[in-house]
Amino acid sequence: VASDLTTFALKLAAAARAETLPRWRDGVAAEHKGDGAFDPVTDADREGERVMRALIEQHFPDHGVSGEEFGVTGGTSPFTWSLDPVDGTRSFMCRLPTWTTLIALLENGEPVLGVIDAPVLGETYVGRGGQSWLYGNENNVEVRTSGCTSIDDARLSTTDPYLFNEPRPFERIRERAKVTRYSHDGYAYACVAAGSLDLVIESGLKAHDYTALIPVVRGAGGYIGDWNGGEDFGPGQVIAAATRELYEEAVTLLSE
Amino acid sequence: VASDLTTFALKLAAAARAETLPRWRDGVAAEHKGDGAFDPVTDADREGERVMRALIEQHFPDHGVSGEEFGVTGGTSPFTWSLDPVDGTRSFMCRLPTWTTLIALLENGEPVLGVIDAPVLGETYVGRGGQSWLYGNENNVEVRTSGCTSIDDARLSTTDPYLFNEPRPFERIRERAKVTRYSHDGYAYACVAAGSLDLVIESGLKAHDYTALIPVVRGAGGYIGDWNGGEDFGPGQVIAAATRELYEEAVTLLSE
Repeated sequence: VASDLTTFALKLAAAARAETLPRWRDGVAAEHKGDGAFDPVTDADREGERVMRALIEQHFPDHGVSGEEFGVTGGTSPFTWSLDPVDGTRSFMCRLPTWTTLIALLENGEPVLGVIDAPVLGETYVGRGGQSWLYGNENNVEVRTSGCTSIDDARLSTTDPYLFNEPRPFERIRERAKVTRYSHDGYAYACVAAGSLDLVIESGLKAHDYTALIPVVRGAGGYIGDWNGGEDFGPGQVIAAATRELYEEAVTLLSE
Repeated sequence: VASDLTTFALKLAAAARAETLPRWRDGVAAEHKGDGAFDPVTDADREGERVMRALIEQHFPDHGVSGEEFGVTGGTSPFTWSLDPVDGTRSFMCRLPTWTTLIALLENGEPVLGVIDAPVLGETYVGRGGQSWLYGNENNVEVRTSGCTSIDDARLSTTDPYLFNEPRPFERIRERAKVTRYSHDGYAYACVAAGSLDLVIESGLKAHDYTALIPVVRGAGGYIGDWNGGEDFGPGQVIAAATRELYEEAVTLLSE
């Protein structure tokens, strides 16, 4: 991917942030004043996607767009943008800080650039061409996973333990892991890339939820795959791990 | 409580923050470089408590201190400080943002002043004398709970659904609640005070975990009590709710 596309992806994230962050700061409070017609999460989702789509149409009119809110617009080039303006809607609703904006660029269907932007935390994670970076408030640093290779040492995360159809496979891993945290949605994958979490296991993800995560985790040296040892993300069962060894151990434990 | 004690409590929070926040920012990354002897959470906990105890000894030598790390120092006045330098150790370990420093002032054993300081988020919640405030980066605002009176409308939080000896009572509430979030420890009680969460249900809390929360929740118009409809926090079963009605509904559902 050309670096001007990375610059453009960061511009998309900044445009979305200008719509989402003020609604999170002020809107959630406003909702509680009893005006039931006002829904800051839906507003943030819609307006965030609207400004990103407008920029893509303006700068890359031949690119396709697939957005969580406004669906698919076909393109005439090999490039398509996948946009999820607010990933972690439930955290946003509760004014919790780890919701993100997810942006991916696909080339012939393969994610080649991923952005995980955490507006409240002032952190933007970018994965591209086998490298990942944290663009923070102060400086940009390349990020790497922890290198953890064993469940027994792993800091584990999943968004909601009640979302699994069969809770037992996840629980087998949770019982072995060093520590488990919940409720962090796409931000947890950025933490795997940055080395502060080692393993994320989830089910029920949609394409807009996982596409941007793939280049970020891979660029940091991590491994991301499905629950069966492959890369069929379509059914929404995703594992991201600091290393391939840890990923394989998770796959084995899930299938026991 | 005299307002100079509030000012002093904020000074304690700032002193602890100077020890904890840099260790969270830099130390968690350092740990992953493989130096197993280095433990940023334990360091932050110890050094955070050490600076707070030193300030109390210097300014109020007759006050007692009960700290999570260094135990109890008796005083000769009716006042005792309860200190938990890092509440949410597991979030700190995973470089997640919602860990807090909890500071309470007890007068004859009753918590009369509470501080929930969230260093990463730049938010300090203070409860005292039937009022609560958010001291933020920009300005100080009085906070109030949402006023939510029904489980069906409630945004629910608990730190870890696997910490309950009997999971079923909590699950009955979770199944009714509008949305449930996990892993936020003491910060969730600040969210109840500020109106962005409505209900927190936990078990296994120690005195340092809950004492500071009580004035913050009460000062914002919320209700905090035990699982049996009383105020016996000793066994560590705590419910914080936006309103007394919501608290009572939770008590009823938990006991069914």
